[in-house]
Amino acid sequence: MNEVIKIAHGDGGKYTQMLIQQLFYKYFNNKLLLQAGDSTVLPSMEGTMAFTTDSFVVKPLFFSGGDIGKLAVCGTINDLVVSGAKPLYLSVGFIIEEGFSMQLLEKIVKSMGEVCIKAGVNIVTGDTKVVEKGAVDGIFINTSGIGQIINGYAIKPIEAGDRIIVTGGIGEHGTTIALERYDIKVQGEFKSDCDTLHPFIEELKEYFMSIKIMRDPTRGGLATVLHEFSTFYSLGIHLTEEHIPISEGVRVVNQLLGLDPLYMACEGRIVIVVKESEAERILKIIQSMVQGKEARIIGKFVKEPEDTIFIENYFGGKRILAQLDGNMLPRIC
Amino acid sequence: MNEVIKIAHGDGGKYTQMLIQQLFYKYFNNKLLLQAGDSTVLPSMEGTMAFTTDSFVVKPLFFSGGDIGKLAVCGTINDLVVSGAKPLYLSVGFIIEEGFSMQLLEKIVKSMGEVCIKAGVNIVTGDTKVVEKGAVDGIFINTSGIGQIINGYAIKPIEAGDRIIVTGGIGEHGTTIALERYDIKVQGEFKSDCDTLHPFIEELKEYFMSIKIMRDPTRGGLATVLHEFSTFYSLGIHLTEEHIPISEGVRVVNQLLGLDPLYMACEGRIVIVVKESEAERILKIIQSMVQGKEARIIGKFVKEPEDTIFIENYFGGKRILAQLDGNMLPRIC
Repeated sequence: MNEVIKIAHGDGGKYTQMLIQQLFYKYFNNKLLLQAGDSTVLPSMEGTMAFTTDSFVVKPLFFSGGDIGKLAVCGTINDLVVSGAKPLYLSVGFIIEEGFSMQLLEKIVKSMGEVCIKAGVNIVTGDTKVVEKGAVDGIFINTSGIGQIINGYAIKPIEAGDRIIVTGGIGEHGTTIALERYDIKVQGEFKSDCDTLHPFIEELKEYFMSIKIMRDPTRGGLATVLHEFSTFYSLGIHLTEEHIPISEGVRVVNQLLGLDPLYMACEGRIVIVVKESEAERILKIIQSMVQGKEARIIGKFVKEPEDTIFIENYFGGKRILAQLDGNMLPRIC
Repeated sequence: MNEVIKIAHGDGGKYTQMLIQQLFYKYFNNKLLLQAGDSTVLPSMEGTMAFTTDSFVVKPLFFSGGDIGKLAVCGTINDLVVSGAKPLYLSVGFIIEEGFSMQLLEKIVKSMGEVCIKAGVNIVTGDTKVVEKGAVDGIFINTSGIGQIINGYAIKPIEAGDRIIVTGGIGEHGTTIALERYDIKVQGEFKSDCDTLHPFIEELKEYFMSIKIMRDPTRGGLATVLHEFSTFYSLGIHLTEEHIPISEGVRVVNQLLGLDPLYMACEGRIVIVVKESEAERILKIIQSMVQGKEARIIGKFVKEPEDTIFIENYFGGKRILAQLDGNMLPRIC
């Protein structure tokens, strides 16, 4: 199949209809999408909703562990999950360069459909624009999402003593993209952690009262999320370096590249701040999940000094984790 | 102000926060946005919701009657309106080229904010990606929207005899963009019809039982919308040319350019199919509105021949309106 995307695929006419019916309906098959007009009428929903949006411009489009389509669906699902919401409905907006391979588009769309099925989420509305060669680098995707807030989840103020849990190895997505973008060959297998985090909602919903905040550490990585928390609540953070789950490979590659895994994007991890008294119990629940077996308590919030993140190493030495100033690696998501 | 967008404005860190606080919060100021985390929790809503998405890639970014920001907000609001929904919440996803003028970005954001205030809609969640020079042509915007279905509005099957109303002059957006894109100087003032159509919901909600379907004729214009209806319901359409509101300027310019206004995009018009018995009454209501004073009944659905659109001219001659095959003008929205 050597077909390519033509300008006419985006004109809203016959070719757009062909694309919708032959490609999108095939992989995003659901009753709501098939009935959609200019917008899609959703079944009525109890309680409150969460609403989020994200655009994806990752380069390369295909990488070990995923592709732009998987990333787009996971990214928006995960933004709902960390808001305490069960992800339900997604929209998808494609902006595609004229001449883009139809075969690659099908791979991307297929991979989006697969994640949706796994997560029990439906893509219910969409839009496709095709622009002339050179006006966009291949394909960009926007996904917006609607979820249903579970068990009245709400963010609660962080206090000194609260513990910080991460649900798995840090920096794997960012490191994988860096290696593939710069075409660096290294020993060992690197794979993005890109994954949908919807199972956490089910497992953690009974503990929402003890969870202060959840966040997926994407752009800017773990360090950036912690800096936001620390600044917002005028608290310090004390991290224990040896407790932060970072694979040997990720550690070594980042050292070689002069990068720091603490600032590298994750696309399948959650940072969870919990009450001290419930930290061990919540950690055990997370560790009992396939996606959480490497979870650790990595540190805690402290009163003094404000706005500063310390990391203590194995020998008791401390260093300060600075705020990210400039992009370590653009087009990571 | 000669500032430009830098890669760091999209890295999720300090500069992204500056952009959010100094620009987006300024023009999209609302309580829900200010409280937003990875997603935004919406107040609980009665009844059913409509959900829609659209990406905007229009070129030029600024045109007579609007800009890409106004177009993005109006476009998504209007998709909700023609679904019988009161528009409530929008998301916005920016993809911006490194080096893009901060001043132009502010103009775009300001214009989005103004339309939102006018339409009583809030932008409650957003995302900004910055890509390197050449990876995107200036700026692309995605807007997704949520609205509340009013008075149980639902699409009803079109039948022979149903009348077709358009709410105003046809082809003005498409013609304006064509003139500006190709830098064609003509006498007279051309202006996009880009506008938010939310007032129609209030005025028409009591007549929803007599309205079969509403559609905003954007890409592909009036002809494409009518072809979709005609094909879907296997009915013919009979149009009366002299009843189709097309300004003299639009008519002449399209003739000169070898284009047909019936296929040119509108961004502030609605095509409404209504029961024959209520057509005149609904037309009067529409004509009593500022945005509907040029509304006309332009034709009707007929049993025979199926799938064919006839236009009858002043002298009684008939021509067939073909389906759009290929794009008359890409990047129209």
